Amino acid sequence: MKRNFANYLVEFIGTFFLVFTVGCCAFGEGSGLIPAIAIGFVLMVMVYAGGHISGGHYNPAVSFAAAIRGALQWKQIVQYFIAQILGAVVAALAVKYVVVLPAIESMPVFNIPALIIGEFLFTFALCYVVLLTAAEKPVEGNSYYGLAIGSTVTAGAFSAGSYCLAAFNPAVVAGLAVMGVVNLQTGLITAAVNLLAGACAALVFRFVSTEEN
Amino acid sequence: MKRNFANYLVEFIGTFFLVFTVGCCAFGEGSGLIPAIAIGFVLMVMVYAGGHISGGHYNPAVSFAAAIRGALQWKQIVQYFIAQILGAVVAALAVKYVVVLPAIESMPVFNIPALIIGEFLFTFALCYVVLLTAAEKPVEGNSYYGLAIGSTVTAGAFSAGSYCLAAFNPAVVAGLAVMGVVNLQTGLITAAVNLLAGACAALVFRFVSTEEN
Amino acid sequence: MKRNFANYLVEFIGTFFLVFTVGCCAFGEGSGLIPAIAIGFVLMVMVYAGGHISGGHYNPAVSFAAAIRGALQWKQIVQYFIAQILGAVVAALAVKYVVVLPAIESMPVFNIPALIIGEFLFTFALCYVVLLTAAEKPVEGNSYYGLAIGSTVTAGAFSAGSYCLAAFNPAVVAGLAVMGVVNLQTGLITAAVNLLAGACAALVFRFVSTEEN
Amino acid sequence: MKRNFANYLVEFIGTFFLVFTVGCCAFGEGSGLIPAIAIGFVLMVMVYAGGHISGGHYNPAVSFAAAIRGALQWKQIVQYFIAQILGAVVAALAVKYVVVLPAIESMPVFNIPALIIGEFLFTFALCYVVLLTAAEKPVEGNSYYGLAIGSTVTAGAFSAGSYCLAAFNPAVVAGLAVMGVVNLQTGLITAAVNLLAGACAALVFRFVSTEEN
Repeated sequence: MKRNFANYLVEFIGTFFLVFTVGCCAFGEGSGLIPAIAIGFVLMVMVYAGGHISGGHYNPAVSFAAAIRGALQWKQIVQYFIAQILGAVVAALAVKYVVVLPAIESMPVFNIPALIIGEFLFTFALCYVVLLTAAEKPVEGNSYYGLAIGSTVTAGAFSAGSYCLAAFNPAVVAGLAVMGVVNLQTGLITAAVNLLAGACAALVFRFVSTEEN
Repeated sequence: MKRNFANYLVEFIGTFFLVFTVGCCAFGEGSGLIPAIAIGFVLMVMVYAGGHISGGHYNPAVSFAAAIRGALQWKQIVQYFIAQILGAVVAALAVKYVVVLPAIESMPVFNIPALIIGEFLFTFALCYVVLLTAAEKPVEGNSYYGLAIGSTVTAGAFSAGSYCLAAFNPAVVAGLAVMGVVNLQTGLITAAVNLLAGACAALVFRFVSTEEN
Repeated sequence: MKRNFANYLVEFIGTFFLVFTVGCCAFGEGSGLIPAIAIGFVLMVMVYAGGHISGGHYNPAVSFAAAIRGALQWKQIVQYFIAQILGAVVAALAVKYVVVLPAIESMPVFNIPALIIGEFLFTFALCYVVLLTAAEKPVEGNSYYGLAIGSTVTAGAFSAGSYCLAAFNPAVVAGLAVMGVVNLQTGLITAAVNLLAGACAALVFRFVSTEEN
Repeated sequence: MKRNFANYLVEFIGTFFLVFTVGCCAFGEGSGLIPAIAIGFVLMVMVYAGGHISGGHYNPAVSFAAAIRGALQWKQIVQYFIAQILGAVVAALAVKYVVVLPAIESMPVFNIPALIIGEFLFTFALCYVVLLTAAEKPVEGNSYYGLAIGSTVTAGAFSAGSYCLAAFNPAVVAGLAVMGVVNLQTGLITAAVNLLAGACAALVFRFVSTEEN
């Protein structure tokens, strides 16, 4: 019981810092390189801090993939989602206090098929990397999983940041919605594509994992 | 006895290089990306070099959190503080020799509540990451603790550098004071918030650590 | 049988993401720093994800070096090449959809001897690093191989990006050809030099490896 | 015998790539961030590749510190110096072929005391980090030593690059001399300070190492 609550607290804290960094770096001062690097770093750091406790997901798409893979109990997934969304919402409110956010009219409008490709590919990559580095017996005890997971998001933001939200994470979408910088349609499509990509990554994992064979 | 003095020397050296890098990179030549990256790197490097000797704190807020957590003896904390502050002061004098520092009038004036939020959040994150990666039995022997600790400061400087000092460390505040680039009020508030955040991180650690359960 | 197919799928996925990132970052929006960092990161990430399955080559020059070294069976090398080239081709088609590519006339024309030096040196370095960090018994189980491999490509792109393609990988050359941003002569010379460099690295490895002695 | 020659070859290769990257990135195209990052990365990569063979010094100051510490036999030090200087000279010739180097008159003239401080401090830091991460029994088998060593040079280049050569390495000085971008006086002072700093780091190491106690 206390153990479970500790897991939710760790998920809350990690998602809070992820979304707080997204908001401060993507909309505050700073050059084009900063958001992708800062967001990848903060995710890495929180994965290293909390990975051995809650799994260090901070992302409903990752929790979904982990549940399909059997690394998270299905009966915990709703609590994980709540902790993550809550962390994102509180972070978004904090961002609104410290940063002057742009009006939604000034945000880019994305081409939907390109947005779907970008969000699908890098959320798939993210969940694929999580499962193969942090939830695979043959590489248990490695020290690189956090670096790999954070750097996937950095590479994805550099690759896809010009034609999609580069959220790769429904909790980040929720945070952006509370900040008022994403419209409903873009947000819902992104979150749905993120979850679908997580499911696909879990299926590919089951096929390629050396553990299952 | 010699062992203890070795610890203080390691803390002195690490804090010296941290504050020297802060001074050279934040006020010398160079783009907006450089300070956050250089400071995170030098902290990482010094944590890896000295972590197995003194704990590699280089930061009174981290030493305070480590003492609450039981990873540093209370009777050593004053000596740790002295070694850290001394390293910071000597570094600040060296910075004044090699870099032309800006006048204090040209430094930004921060909104106090935003400053408190920024300093609190990322000092909390720093101490939380230190305790969960470098002072937690279940992950002992990992190779990522220095990377995680340094990168927390980099992410924090990117996220909060526009509305607070982004010191996350009372010894850095002392160094900035000797360099003459921070006023008394900002410095005292920052240092106090840093220590408070370290204490909060230690309490959260006691709750979430898998070791305590 | 299924095991073999899993290897090819992992090589396909990794090369896909490598070439997709090359295309999006080298020809999409973004500063001069982004391509080298993003490409090194995505290679690192895919090496960490798939290294324990297929070896994580994503590069015919690396597979060639691995075969000479005895870390890949010769009878598998054609399938590896096919999976890598296929991943590159599919990625190039995806890039053409999401990014507006430059006309081939606007691409730089390289001085051939300088191009050969640049492609040879860093493909040699890449294969040398792969063999000494990921296929050498005395350092088995290390957590740094992916970081070392990805960072070699980043350093090479920074060092040689102004006088060669900085592909260091025939599959990347194939991807660039499908994108229509490289001419036949440059592409063929680059791919041939890449393979030659891989072979040289394997010979040097046999001489310096501590394992062979 | 063959083992020894393998060590020298590894030192030659590593120093070659280090100095080649210095030349291409510091004097070729590219922003202010690139040299420090590329040089740190290439050093990291070569340390990871060759560390378990030759020690991965690529730097006479590091070899000198390693000999004082007892991690390199004194009777090998001259051969190490020769391999390193040779690698640097060949790299400098290659750089002259692929990059248009600036005239020596256009190079900055440094204030000598500031140059001494910068070169001393970060060469000291580099050797201190090498000894405590790569030549210290209690942390044997760690995966972070290359990252720590390379990042020390990156942090040093960012911190001291505006008031000294930021060579931290007599072999790099030799390479710069062959490239014709450093004058005799600056070069000799830098190399001498580098060796002195290596010796000081070795003495501090003997005092703080947990192994000696």
